[in-house]
Amino acid sequence: MSISPALGVCYYPEHWPEEWWEKDAARMAEVGIKYVRIGEFAWSRMEPTPGDIKLAWMIRSMDVLGKHGHKVIVGTPTATPPRWMVDKHPDMLAVDANGNRKGFGSRRHYDFSHLPFREESARITQILADALSDHPALGGWQTDNEYGCHGTTYSYSPAALDGFRKWLASRYGSIESLNEAWGNVFWSMEYNSFDQIELPNLLITDPNPIHALDFRRYSSDQVAAFNKAQYDILKAKRPDLPVIHNFMSRYTEFDHYDVAETLDVASWDSYPIGHLAVSDEPDDIKRQYMRQGDPDNAAFHHDLYRTVGHGRWWIMEQQPGPVNWAKFNPDPLPGMARLWAWEAFAHGAEVVSYFRWRQAPFAQEQMHAGLLRPDSEPAPAYEEALQVAQELKQSGIDGQVEKARVAIVFDYDSEWAWQVQPQADGFKHGAHVRDIYAAFRKHGIDIDILSPKTKSFAGYDVVAIPALFAWTDELREAVASFEGYLLLGPRTGSKTKNFSIPARLGPDLSPNLLDAKVMRVDSIPSYVSIPVKGGGTTRLWREKVETRGEVVMEDNEGVPVLISQGKIFYLTASGDRALMQRIADYLIAEADLPVLSLPAGVRTRSRGGFRVYVNYSASPATLNAAADESGYVIGGAEIPAAGVTVARLAKVG
Amino acid sequence: MSISPALGVCYYPEHWPEEWWEKDAARMAEVGIKYVRIGEFAWSRMEPTPGDIKLAWMIRSMDVLGKHGHKVIVGTPTATPPRWMVDKHPDMLAVDANGNRKGFGSRRHYDFSHLPFREESARITQILADALSDHPALGGWQTDNEYGCHGTTYSYSPAALDGFRKWLASRYGSIESLNEAWGNVFWSMEYNSFDQIELPNLLITDPNPIHALDFRRYSSDQVAAFNKAQYDILKAKRPDLPVIHNFMSRYTEFDHYDVAETLDVASWDSYPIGHLAVSDEPDDIKRQYMRQGDPDNAAFHHDLYRTVGHGRWWIMEQQPGPVNWAKFNPDPLPGMARLWAWEAFAHGAEVVSYFRWRQAPFAQEQMHAGLLRPDSEPAPAYEEALQVAQELKQSGIDGQVEKARVAIVFDYDSEWAWQVQPQADGFKHGAHVRDIYAAFRKHGIDIDILSPKTKSFAGYDVVAIPALFAWTDELREAVASFEGYLLLGPRTGSKTKNFSIPARLGPDLSPNLLDAKVMRVDSIPSYVSIPVKGGGTTRLWREKVETRGEVVMEDNEGVPVLISQGKIFYLTASGDRALMQRIADYLIAEADLPVLSLPAGVRTRSRGGFRVYVNYSASPATLNAAADESGYVIGGAEIPAAGVTVARLAKVG
Amino acid sequence: MSISPALGVCYYPEHWPEEWWEKDAARMAEVGIKYVRIGEFAWSRMEPTPGDIKLAWMIRSMDVLGKHGHKVIVGTPTATPPRWMVDKHPDMLAVDANGNRKGFGSRRHYDFSHLPFREESARITQILADALSDHPALGGWQTDNEYGCHGTTYSYSPAALDGFRKWLASRYGSIESLNEAWGNVFWSMEYNSFDQIELPNLLITDPNPIHALDFRRYSSDQVAAFNKAQYDILKAKRPDLPVIHNFMSRYTEFDHYDVAETLDVASWDSYPIGHLAVSDEPDDIKRQYMRQGDPDNAAFHHDLYRTVGHGRWWIMEQQPGPVNWAKFNPDPLPGMARLWAWEAFAHGAEVVSYFRWRQAPFAQEQMHAGLLRPDSEPAPAYEEALQVAQELKQSGIDGQVEKARVAIVFDYDSEWAWQVQPQADGFKHGAHVRDIYAAFRKHGIDIDILSPKTKSFAGYDVVAIPALFAWTDELREAVASFEGYLLLGPRTGSKTKNFSIPARLGPDLSPNLLDAKVMRVDSIPSYVSIPVKGGGTTRLWREKVETRGEVVMEDNEGVPVLISQGKIFYLTASGDRALMQRIADYLIAEADLPVLSLPAGVRTRSRGGFRVYVNYSASPATLNAAADESGYVIGGAEIPAAGVTVARLAKVG
Ligand SMILES: [Zn+2]
Ligand SMILES: [Zn+2]
Ligand SMILES: [Zn+2]
Repeated sequence: MSISPALGVCYYPEHWPEEWWEKDAARMAEVGIKYVRIGEFAWSRMEPTPGDIKLAWMIRSMDVLGKHGHKVIVGTPTATPPRWMVDKHPDMLAVDANGNRKGFGSRRHYDFSHLPFREESARITQILADALSDHPALGGWQTDNEYGCHGTTYSYSPAALDGFRKWLASRYGSIESLNEAWGNVFWSMEYNSFDQIELPNLLITDPNPIHALDFRRYSSDQVAAFNKAQYDILKAKRPDLPVIHNFMSRYTEFDHYDVAETLDVASWDSYPIGHLAVSDEPDDIKRQYMRQGDPDNAAFHHDLYRTVGHGRWWIMEQQPGPVNWAKFNPDPLPGMARLWAWEAFAHGAEVVSYFRWRQAPFAQEQMHAGLLRPDSEPAPAYEEALQVAQELKQSGIDGQVEKARVAIVFDYDSEWAWQVQPQADGFKHGAHVRDIYAAFRKHGIDIDILSPKTKSFAGYDVVAIPALFAWTDELREAVASFEGYLLLGPRTGSKTKNFSIPARLGPDLSPNLLDAKVMRVDSIPSYVSIPVKGGGTTRLWREKVETRGEVVMEDNEGVPVLISQGKIFYLTASGDRALMQRIADYLIAEADLPVLSLPAGVRTRSRGGFRVYVNYSASPATLNAAADESGYVIGGAEIPAAGVTVARLAKVG
Repeated sequence: MSISPALGVCYYPEHWPEEWWEKDAARMAEVGIKYVRIGEFAWSRMEPTPGDIKLAWMIRSMDVLGKHGHKVIVGTPTATPPRWMVDKHPDMLAVDANGNRKGFGSRRHYDFSHLPFREESARITQILADALSDHPALGGWQTDNEYGCHGTTYSYSPAALDGFRKWLASRYGSIESLNEAWGNVFWSMEYNSFDQIELPNLLITDPNPIHALDFRRYSSDQVAAFNKAQYDILKAKRPDLPVIHNFMSRYTEFDHYDVAETLDVASWDSYPIGHLAVSDEPDDIKRQYMRQGDPDNAAFHHDLYRTVGHGRWWIMEQQPGPVNWAKFNPDPLPGMARLWAWEAFAHGAEVVSYFRWRQAPFAQEQMHAGLLRPDSEPAPAYEEALQVAQELKQSGIDGQVEKARVAIVFDYDSEWAWQVQPQADGFKHGAHVRDIYAAFRKHGIDIDILSPKTKSFAGYDVVAIPALFAWTDELREAVASFEGYLLLGPRTGSKTKNFSIPARLGPDLSPNLLDAKVMRVDSIPSYVSIPVKGGGTTRLWREKVETRGEVVMEDNEGVPVLISQGKIFYLTASGDRALMQRIADYLIAEADLPVLSLPAGVRTRSRGGFRVYVNYSASPATLNAAADESGYVIGGAEIPAAGVTVARLAKVG
Repeated sequence: MSISPALGVCYYPEHWPEEWWEKDAARMAEVGIKYVRIGEFAWSRMEPTPGDIKLAWMIRSMDVLGKHGHKVIVGTPTATPPRWMVDKHPDMLAVDANGNRKGFGSRRHYDFSHLPFREESARITQILADALSDHPALGGWQTDNEYGCHGTTYSYSPAALDGFRKWLASRYGSIESLNEAWGNVFWSMEYNSFDQIELPNLLITDPNPIHALDFRRYSSDQVAAFNKAQYDILKAKRPDLPVIHNFMSRYTEFDHYDVAETLDVASWDSYPIGHLAVSDEPDDIKRQYMRQGDPDNAAFHHDLYRTVGHGRWWIMEQQPGPVNWAKFNPDPLPGMARLWAWEAFAHGAEVVSYFRWRQAPFAQEQMHAGLLRPDSEPAPAYEEALQVAQELKQSGIDGQVEKARVAIVFDYDSEWAWQVQPQADGFKHGAHVRDIYAAFRKHGIDIDILSPKTKSFAGYDVVAIPALFAWTDELREAVASFEGYLLLGPRTGSKTKNFSIPARLGPDLSPNLLDAKVMRVDSIPSYVSIPVKGGGTTRLWREKVETRGEVVMEDNEGVPVLISQGKIFYLTASGDRALMQRIADYLIAEADLPVLSLPAGVRTRSRGGFRVYVNYSASPATLNAAADESGYVIGGAEIPAAGVTVARLAKVG
């Protein structure tokens, strides 16, 4: 099943006088909002003191919302345990890498490894499920809120230590196996028992990289287990309603694919301007897109979470104006609150839910805009949301996002591995993946993101597996059977799952697929780059490869940069955007993919017979009508700054 | 009462052989020094072991100093409790924000919240009062030394936690009131009792801003209470003698107005070169004024502490040469030790006291210059001090600083609030205030600093209330009755005292005074600025305001920058120095204020019928004689680098 | 005794299947390797559980190595105590300056102050000595590994506190003496007993500098004591075999001269590319020498460790390719693994031992190259090592490095003192020393490094004593009797050993040697410099000196920069490289020293009748044959990038 494109909003009835609820619900309906998320931070109102359950106010608020036709997504409040919970479980608080317990006074003050709190989380979830499951306005559930936000995936607590030891015992069976798998003979790091293993913080120098990686794997598994506990309860009551979690941008501390094994729909919280502001993009990009956000970042996450969500995904929180949490918080260009929503729908979003209805005049997020100002007057996004609602109707856009012809594998183990062992300061798995994504997308090419458990690439013309830490059995199978063009490297397959160099060295493929061995790595400072013959440069990471493949590109020093063997291409280096673009262009030409000629700053995605153009630039642009389009249903060829144009696609054939 | 301009010096008899005292006192008299501060770091010599009081040496040193005509300021030694005190009260040591106790081995190793140490502080104060009050050389007292120096205002100790909870209980009455006032429904931060409230450190993410602000208010109150305990003892013995504290430059962690409620005279420690070196001024300013100090910073503090001291103020420590405590410690330009003293007297200082008599060859400050070198030879400032003493006599300057025509409100709550919630990284209350100060002063205009408890602006032509966090009742009254020109904003009145957005939004004035609402804030990175039509740029902070006022200035995007309604002007943005200058110029013209045409680097202040010019530039300059001057008593129109010229003012009318 | 130039390698038999050992040993012999270091990280294999000694595998590996003609250096494994040791002695773990215990999971996890661990270290050393001393392949011992690496010299533990107090009691005798020597009257820092003294961390502001310095001295003494415990055991068994330690580059936290009092040979671990990468050299130097290393840094350490080792020294670990531990780890230029070895031999190395034989595919250093790749194929350095071995034979180079005509005093107390009290941020003793070293070396002049215990400079033409903290009796004696040219300053002699300013001020020499007094210090920011008349600039540190000496150079402000009195020259400032070069050139001319005209990037050193030229540049160069050369035995006048040329010196006539 799926839901036709619809708007939503995040609402906090507990923040406002009950007499305001009715008018709020009515105005939401006027805007065209269908989905209203409530409850996810309200534990202290649901249970003011231990065991004293107070849900009548929630039911009344759902009554009011339902009366105005809204469907309510109820959030479990486990991201904000009340203060009394800390009295019950003082050790539920997580410990940071410096050994400090992080206290009560904001949010997410719990340790995923703390099993008694996991039970409390299940208890309140069961209470909500029991009390609200039959409410006619109930439209679904959200588990917790933004797992991992504020660096909360990792805890260096006694609870985490205990859990980690048990997890290792279960993974490796015997301490001898662990010592062997980890190579603990190095530096006499051999353990006599699992009880001797410590967490990888506060060491003299770097831990064994597999020690660090296994701790990340363990921590990720705790997030998944935490979510599963809630999911099982919620689904038991209402198998028909979706259980959703709201993920984030560039938060990769846990494996989202694993967590989504107990989710029906993935959602994420899209704050394009805040995300760019807190990113490590260069200042010129931050300046150019200060009021728009990075033009490829939201799209990347749309495509990622579509895969994470097994095809179903929402925006649970959509930025409506300035946020409060970055170092600087610019006002969006007029139109961006509309553009972001349209782009999400183009990538297949079912619901785009603005955060939040009314700006709160108090507490931490008082500078965060809403659809309403604190004085209940409409903020600029109010009108933009209204416009989106009307345009959705007008355009009739709906249906599934079709399978793309290009796919990129995105893998969380690789994120962690290259953080543990960058070797070149600044080398980042995610940045490399996103650069390839942007290079294809610049030509208007739709892209799918694939998980490392993908067993077949059938149907794709081009698949990239960039900077993959270690082969999974599934990817080996997919590679072996793939008939399209494959782009690998750098670093792809350079490690075993136990973080060792494989016996036949990276990329560790059968020589009949790719006869190449990475003999040596040259990692260089960020202020040095090596020109590549024909254009672009390599930077940070360079491999010297022994190969019988064909050299497609080489650098000015004669070092091969792109090697091919049949339709398998191996990239030996990380490159600047110009190089990544050349490589994408090369593969597009080889695979004979159709492209669009897009003005600078304009991006596009097709869905259900429509092509949606969005203009991330601060200047207007003129679209070139593509041969497969039969006119515009929203906007036109002249697309203003922050504008949206929707073209109808001619029926194929 | 007040004291005619006089010189002083800081002296440490305990550092030198007693046989040197006589000669030192005689040479001080030769220089023309009247006031000698002693004792403020000598607790281990006053009480070498617990209860073993040894003050004979102090009395003998006062005898010697008195014999040579000096008045002695005795400092209470509470900034340096002896090591044995820590054995008595191990928990008197403060705890930093990371949870580490800061130990013995330097100075200021006590926690303002620690009540037993506060009693020890009262005890030693009583002992000094009892023993020294009747000494004929006694001229006054200094309490402690540099409250808050080295970040010692805040402690995150159990003592602070206990005190904070009691302070909150007293402020809010009930936990329900606190939850309501703080908006703790947000993120389920509601408390069931005051005993659950924690200090705002070591949290997962930002605390509630009012939580952070109230902790700063609480901490400030402890400094005031600490001072009051000493003041009450000292005044009980000798109501006629001034009790003084030596404040600092740009240390705003506690409310100086509050502390000064139990002071007779404010003083401050002026190290212009060190202060510039440790400031966050840009490198070009640091380079340009490396050997002089920021040309407006000392003056600003002179004017501030004149108000803090209820009209009476001193320089307790005046830089005489290179200091030791900045990252780099340049030698002053020849003449600066004279210039700084003259500038202080021009702003109304009663005493300028050089720190220190002789450079100590040992311990932490061995690289800090004195009037004498470590080998007792005169250092360059020796002659400069002598010159000042002679010039004071020669000029006959004396009397009160007259009330200025321009005033600026400076408020500590605002300092703290915008540190807690800058919203734009780099936005600082103090910097904004000082920019306005400098813009008026560039035209030779005298300025008064006002506290937020000012009830009337009568007598001023122009008053600025920049970046005021929240209105006080007094300022509302002053604004309502003011007939001059008023400059407000940005951010002025944008919060309630409980750190919420006011119901009618900022600036939260009656529409008949100023009909304007800040609808939205646009905060931008420091590397972006928006040109204003006519000159200057806005940066960091911009407000979008809904108003019926007149637009006086707007930026290139058409956003109003300066709005007026009658004589009330509202500035919607923070600006660069060019913009702040334009705004000052505009108001000067509107208010028809007389101005001086000053060469670059030259500053001036008038006192008691004289106008003092000081040249902070490293080049000579030529003064333009002003119409109201009747010749020079010190120097002349040609003012050398680091020079001083004093003009006599013609009698008015 | 000494050893004729030979190659070595670091080998970890415990990392590889025993069946590989034989082939490994044979291939080492093919390369021409003579010395094989083993064992230094293998404690968990020597004693897998407490008391269960397993050395049979070591003996078998020594049998295999010996069979192939190798001499084995056995390392004591004390840098990597096994995990069970931490169960026995939980408090053996060091505590960092923030108060955190640093745990097990990497290496060097022990506290030099922890006496029970020092006994464990002696115990395992005794066990190795007993078991292996008579093995015919044994060639010597290495104590521990890289003392101080990863900042492990300092610990702020209870054990360190206890040791420090006892050390102070022993040094000062009475608490009164300590209070007097430290100047503790300042800020009431006087102690009543040694038990009150704390470690100088976690203070409110800076500790008394002598407090900080004495803690460094104490900590250094613990390293020496730790080494002595092993040395005594090893020498007792085999007085004929050398005991060696492997020191590092720019690690100056302990006094290497003191540690070497119980060593027969000094060695160091030379990673030129990694050392440059982690250094604070400017980015342009890092870029220029990215694949070569700083062209003077290795040579400086060769000369330093020759003195530390009483004339005998090795390279125990020589970089063979990219390392893993810097932020970026570039591949060396082809030839550098040969060049570095040749340069070491030219400076008198007995053995250059590559680290490591085979790249380990697992654990922390899996990205660190070896002579073999992880798949046992030769890495590039394999052939370069082979070439060096052949060239050593071919050239017949051997014998002692002759005494140089220029010497520079390098002193660890000065390193620590100026870290404690830089006064100008960025002023560093070591950088200043190395700048003088490089300035003389640029002309092909050989240099000796001298310790501060040098009693005579006889035989040298020029001696520099730069930035010396405090005179030792020995240096005073050497200066008084020296007949050559002496370069002192800045800061030289500016403190007493108790970190006070001397009574006659710096440089504190008898006026008949040097009549000068540093009256004042002007320390300036790194972005300011003062031009010196004739070329070069001063930066960071400038002294104003009262002198009757002759002014040789002065700056644009007329401040003397170089002062002379007879053959004693005093430099009043730190300078840029151009100034340091001018000063070296001036002294070279005065002393009439012979110079070579070297192309940029080329460096040279003479040994035993040969002059070795090495080209650190990435471009080829042409050598100018010197008059004292009689042809080339390796290479020729055309020296390629990373090339080596060895000239034979004509017999002195
Ligand atoms: Zn959020
Ligand atoms: Zn001070
Ligand atoms: Zn090493």
